[in-house]
Amino acid sequence: MKSINMIELARELGLSVSTVSKALGDSHEISASTKKRVLELAKKYNYKPNPFASNLRKKKGKQIAVVIPEIVNNFFALAVDGIESVTRDKDYDTFIYLSHESAERERTVLGHLENGLISGIIISVCSGREGYSHFQDFYERTKLPLVFFDRVPDLLQFPKVITDNYHSSYEGTIKLIKAGSKKPLFITTAEPMFTSIERRRGFQDAVESQGIIFTDDMVLECGDDMDINYAIIKKIIGSKKAPDSVFASIEKFAITTYQVCKDLNLNIPKKLKVISYSNLRTATLLSPSLSTISQPAFEMGREAAQMLLKMIEKKSYAAANDIIVLNNDMAIRDSI
Amino acid sequence: MKSINMIELARELGLSVSTVSKALGDSHEISASTKKRVLELAKKYNYKPNPFASNLRKKKGKQIAVVIPEIVNNFFALAVDGIESVTRDKDYDTFIYLSHESAERERTVLGHLENGLISGIIISVCSGREGYSHFQDFYERTKLPLVFFDRVPDLLQFPKVITDNYHSSYEGTIKLIKAGSKKPLFITTAEPMFTSIERRRGFQDAVESQGIIFTDDMVLECGDDMDINYAIIKKIIGSKKAPDSVFASIEKFAITTYQVCKDLNLNIPKKLKVISYSNLRTATLLSPSLSTISQPAFEMGREAAQMLLKMIEKKSYAAANDIIVLNNDMAIRDSI
Repeated sequence: MKSINMIELARELGLSVSTVSKALGDSHEISASTKKRVLELAKKYNYKPNPFASNLRKKKGKQIAVVIPEIVNNFFALAVDGIESVTRDKDYDTFIYLSHESAERERTVLGHLENGLISGIIISVCSGREGYSHFQDFYERTKLPLVFFDRVPDLLQFPKVITDNYHSSYEGTIKLIKAGSKKPLFITTAEPMFTSIERRRGFQDAVESQGIIFTDDMVLECGDDMDINYAIIKKIIGSKKAPDSVFASIEKFAITTYQVCKDLNLNIPKKLKVISYSNLRTATLLSPSLSTISQPAFEMGREAAQMLLKMIEKKSYAAANDIIVLNNDMAIRDSI
Repeated sequence: MKSINMIELARELGLSVSTVSKALGDSHEISASTKKRVLELAKKYNYKPNPFASNLRKKKGKQIAVVIPEIVNNFFALAVDGIESVTRDKDYDTFIYLSHESAERERTVLGHLENGLISGIIISVCSGREGYSHFQDFYERTKLPLVFFDRVPDLLQFPKVITDNYHSSYEGTIKLIKAGSKKPLFITTAEPMFTSIERRRGFQDAVESQGIIFTDDMVLECGDDMDINYAIIKKIIGSKKAPDSVFASIEKFAITTYQVCKDLNLNIPKKLKVISYSNLRTATLLSPSLSTISQPAFEMGREAAQMLLKMIEKKSYAAANDIIVLNNDMAIRDSI
C-alpha cells in the first residue's frame, strides 16, 4: 500500500490539516471522538509522520555544543560519550567542535556559536599560552551557560568538572620512588595547561618529599609531533644520564616510551619503570601491562552535561562557582 | 592602556566607521594614505578587531557536517582528523554528529541539518537493519551534497570512499591458514553493514579456496556490550571445539580476544592465531604484537572531504557515481 501524507489523510476525513496534525499530536484542543477517527484512519493507511518536520519543531533550541582539543584520544572520546549519555536522554542535540589545540580556532568556534541556536557549551580548553579572555568575552556578550571540564581556565569564574590531578600525580610518583626509582623523569606537554601544571606540581612535591633533590632535567617537555617526541625520548632514555623511571602526564608519551624501550631492547620495569595518565583500553594487554592513573572520563562528561542542563533549564547561573572534583583511579601493573 | 573599539578609532580619525572598517580590511575603495593613517592609529592603541563579528560574516554558509557512528574508535577519530585537515585549509567549519549506531538518531540529525546552514554532509552510516531510505529522502528534499565513507549504503547512488574490504579480508584469512590454522573463527558484528558483509564474504571465499569446508559456526556475531562479548568469546575459545585462529572484523573484538586468552592463559599464537582490522596505535606493543589490517582512515577522511568540497564549490553533482577505493595495509606480527 502506498504511504499516505497528512494532507490526504485530512481530505479523506473531511477535516483541516491543522486538526489532523493536532489530533495526531494528542492536543487537548481536539475532542476524543475526533482523535479516535483520525488515529483509526492513520493506522489503516499506515501513516508515518514526516520525521524531519516534527524534529525541527521539537528540537528548536535544544542544542548544546561541545568544544574539545582533539578526538584521537581515549579520554576525550569517552568524555563525549558521557556528555551524550545525558543529552540524549533529555532530547538535546549535541554538536562537537575540535579546537586542534589552537586558541584561534577556539575563537572561531565561539564566533560561530554566537548565532543563538545553541543553549549552552561544554568546553575543555586548548593550551593556555594566549590566556582565556575569549571565554570571558563570549560569556559577557551572550550570557550563554558555559561549563568547563578537565582542562579548565582556573582563574575564571565558571562551573568546572575536574579531577584530583595534583594528588594523583603525587601518589603515582611516590609509587615509582618506593619501587626503587632514584631518578624519575616527568614527561609532559610544553603548553601551559591546568592539568599538566597541577600534575607537574604533584610530581615535584612528591620527589622532594622523598629526600630527592628536584632538578629541572627531571621534567621533559614534548609536543604534538610523534616523530620528534620519539627522537627526544629515545635520546634521553638511551643516554648515560638516563632516568630509571618515567611518569607520562599524557597517554601518548607513555606509548612512545614503550616504543623506544622496545626498539632499544630496554626491559620495563627492570631498566625503566613506567606509569601514565591513561584511559587506554589495552593498558592491561601491553608488554608489560602499563600502570595507569585513569581519569573517570565518562563520568566527567556526565557531570558536566548534568550541570549545563540544570543551568539551561533553570535559567539560573547560581552554579557559576561550582567545581566538581572527581577522583582518579590508580592501577599498578607490571610496568613498575 | 585601555583597548579601543572601531567607533572610537573612527571618531579620533574624523572618518566614518565604514571607512575605518574598509581600511583595516585593506579594501581597494580606500586610498593608500587613509589606510596608512588608520593603521598607524590602530597600532598606537593596540586595536584588536572583534573576532566574533568578522568570523560571522566570513563563515556564513561555510559549514559541513560529519555524521559517524561513534568516536571511541581509532578509525573514526583518525577519519575525522583527515576530514578536518581539508576543511580547515578551506576555512570550512565542521560539525560532528554521532549516530550511536541508531537509525532513529541518524534521522534526527538529518532533520536538524535540513535548516539550510550547512553546505554538505560526510557520513559513515550506522547498521543497515532499517535500510537507508532516509538518506535518499533527505537528498531529494534538500539537494545537499552527500559523501559516504567506509560504511556506505552500497545500493544508493552517492559518491563514496571505501577500502578493499573483500580483498584484504581474503588475504588475511589466507595468512592464517598458511600459518597452520585449520579452524578459523571470524568475529563480526550482528548488524548488517557494508564493511562487515564484504569482509565476511572475503573470509568465506578464502576458507573455501584452501579446501576447508566452510560451516556457519566459523562466524561469530558479537554486539556492543563488551561484557557479553567477553562471555561469548570466552565460552567458544575455552570450549573443546575451540577455533585455532581468530579473524576480528572490528578492533574491539580483537582486544576482547586478547583479554580472554590472557585470562585463560592461552598462548597467542601457539594456541590461537589472531589478526584484526585495526587502527590501534598500540598494536605493536601488545603481548604478543597484533597482526593487523589497517584502513587508511586519515586518507579516507581527506578524500571524502575533498570530494565534498569539490561538489559544494562547483555546485555540480557530477561526482554522484564516483567511488574511490583505497587499499588497506596488512602487517603480520607475532600474533600469527
